[in-house]
Amino acid sequence: MRERAHRVIPGGIYGHNMDKFLWPGAPQFWSRAHGALIWDADGKEYVDLMCSWGPIVHGHNHPVVEAAAATQRHLMDTANGPGEIFVELAELLVGIVSYADWAVFAKSGTDVTTLALMLARAATGRRTVLVARRSFHGTAPWCNPRDTGTTPGDRAHIAYFEYNDPTSLHAAAAAHSGDVAAVILTPHSHPAAYTQEEVREDFARGVRRLCDTLGACLILDEVRTGFRVSFGSSWDHLGIRPDLSCWSKAIANGYPVSALLGTESLRDAARQVYIGGTFWTSAVPMAAAVACITLLQESDGVATMAATGQRIVDGIRGQAESTGIDIVMSGPPAMPYIEFRDDDDPTVAKRWAAAVAERGVYLNPTHNWFISTALDEQHVDRVLDATAGAFDTLLHRRLG
Amino acid sequence: MRERAHRVIPGGIYGHNMDKFLWPGAPQFWSRAHGALIWDADGKEYVDLMCSWGPIVHGHNHPVVEAAAATQRHLMDTANGPGEIFVELAELLVGIVSYADWAVFAKSGTDVTTLALMLARAATGRRTVLVARRSFHGTAPWCNPRDTGTTPGDRAHIAYFEYNDPTSLHAAAAAHSGDVAAVILTPHSHPAAYTQEEVREDFARGVRRLCDTLGACLILDEVRTGFRVSFGSSWDHLGIRPDLSCWSKAIANGYPVSALLGTESLRDAARQVYIGGTFWTSAVPMAAAVACITLLQESDGVATMAATGQRIVDGIRGQAESTGIDIVMSGPPAMPYIEFRDDDDPTVAKRWAAAVAERGVYLNPTHNWFISTALDEQHVDRVLDATAGAFDTLLHRRLG
Repeated sequence: MRERAHRVIPGGIYGHNMDKFLWPGAPQFWSRAHGALIWDADGKEYVDLMCSWGPIVHGHNHPVVEAAAATQRHLMDTANGPGEIFVELAELLVGIVSYADWAVFAKSGTDVTTLALMLARAATGRRTVLVARRSFHGTAPWCNPRDTGTTPGDRAHIAYFEYNDPTSLHAAAAAHSGDVAAVILTPHSHPAAYTQEEVREDFARGVRRLCDTLGACLILDEVRTGFRVSFGSSWDHLGIRPDLSCWSKAIANGYPVSALLGTESLRDAARQVYIGGTFWTSAVPMAAAVACITLLQESDGVATMAATGQRIVDGIRGQAESTGIDIVMSGPPAMPYIEFRDDDDPTVAKRWAAAVAERGVYLNPTHNWFISTALDEQHVDRVLDATAGAFDTLLHRRLG
Repeated sequence: MRERAHRVIPGGIYGHNMDKFLWPGAPQFWSRAHGALIWDADGKEYVDLMCSWGPIVHGHNHPVVEAAAATQRHLMDTANGPGEIFVELAELLVGIVSYADWAVFAKSGTDVTTLALMLARAATGRRTVLVARRSFHGTAPWCNPRDTGTTPGDRAHIAYFEYNDPTSLHAAAAAHSGDVAAVILTPHSHPAAYTQEEVREDFARGVRRLCDTLGACLILDEVRTGFRVSFGSSWDHLGIRPDLSCWSKAIANGYPVSALLGTESLRDAARQVYIGGTFWTSAVPMAAAVACITLLQESDGVATMAATGQRIVDGIRGQAESTGIDIVMSGPPAMPYIEFRDDDDPTVAKRWAAAVAERGVYLNPTHNWFISTALDEQHVDRVLDATAGAFDTLLHRRLG
């Protein structure tokens, strides 16, 4: 498969599955996915802790979501315009997300983070957007983590600050005094290949206050956190309301759809900006989204993911401690991330992930994992058996 | 429905279906689509001449495409990485499109036109991209047809020329001497709300020559034309090969997928640029694409669409002539566009489209239509009965 792929795909593959992000022998191609399990191209079975990099919350091919999608598909998918499901999904999200007064749908997280910037600029008549350094907001030239092929113009009006650092935030704002259209940030800090950090409450309040003072928009990027870490806004527990927010991955259990939610004061701006794409009104992903979110609500799926994630995190921490291997696990339990002390590249994490994969559990050593509601106790046992075995492998290698 | 939508969606709707693009009473919301027919939210049936703005080539919910999608869906859709179908689709496209040596997949036309610019810039180390004025290349800030919410930086390195006008092309290139990374254009000129124009062969050759002279990339945007106007490259009949091309709408009969195809010389650049999105490796749209394209090949669907479109165009031209109403129909028969003489707004075209819709045929008065293979002789008769009736309505109004 890799040989065939190398002939017709640059590098044989791209994105998260490029060689350089993986460990030796890591699976790149997949053949099947069901519930909490996935099978690679060679037919090897794994418990899935990556969940398609976020979209899968109820497990792959969930019967409730698939039934809703099938019913809608029988009627209509991509049509000349939206169907009733478009209005239903907007009503559902506006009902759940405390500050949201309206919704706009697109296909990807990038589509809606980019739209959010355009709306903020249209509403304020300013240009500068403050972005937390190392945050991932999508693949567009303004935010793409590698700048190859971008122009200075693409990022001419992006200014950077450090997450949780009010001094750097205010310095960035001051350097663009009179021109700040928005601050965009994730509900907590979750850069790829870095320790995750909870948002500090005083920092979050400071961001809101700064936006209020400047008349700028606060944009919350919930693409990775939304409906996995919280049911509704991830800042509800702080009582802080953004003006705009971006949602995608977990809202439709694998179907491609994203949403930009906003407050009343930005409704007019949303009417001024050009919004539209051929597949943006497709009805099947919206039916999947309504079913996915409703099921999360009815089953308290967010609490389930938190509890399952906590059991995995606690188990791994205990195993590391008992083997004397120094690790840091960070992030909310439903999207944990592991790091090994003094681990460049990271060599040890990749070696550990390879040993975990050998034992039938798929997780990534340079990116947070994603926990789904489909993991039952037996799956968690399999995960913890595999991680324990992998710690032993590291230990024997170190001793050997 | 419109009232409900207005509460939770800015303007009640967006994109092609915004009030200002429609005629009084035009359907905005849809309930069902099957084969060549669509039903609006009130249950009124129409013969569909818009085909979801391009994606539908075989008619809605086509059994062959749906069967392939269902088989793939049962195995896996959005997973941790691609499946075999990703390689199969790349092999299929590279086999069909004469100059293509590799493929990269994304979700939308905008994704791949934007990637094409990044690749050209990465490959050449230059910034300027020459774009034909009024061309639609997507919804991103660099090409979005309305500039609200964009910054000067977004278009700082875009220079414009007039389609089919070598003088303006060379002037644009000369104004950015030493910095031209690419020329992007559609295979023929099809701006919304303007007369379509075939590409002039000498102009097309001039574009290729200019790119060769400057060492710039020629990017062909086949998003609207691909697999509807031609099976394979739309410039094969001219013997002119672009370096990169962008494909989306018609390749998967309504499933969201897009492709960037390129030549060997740009393979390395494609490895350098950041490429990846959560849903970009989803397997179901790729299975739909393989089935859609294979069916087009086996059934000679492009010839069918051309013949059906020609019958509709000839019929409408004859009706206009016999009623003495002065119209221009432009574009390839599979994507025709109608204009009425001295028609501002366009008032007459909207009135005519409204009268056509009353008679059970859906087409758009400010955008080219899209013909599918699902239109049989009876459907074409229904179309021509409706257009004849609509011309009569215009005539009576004029005489009355």
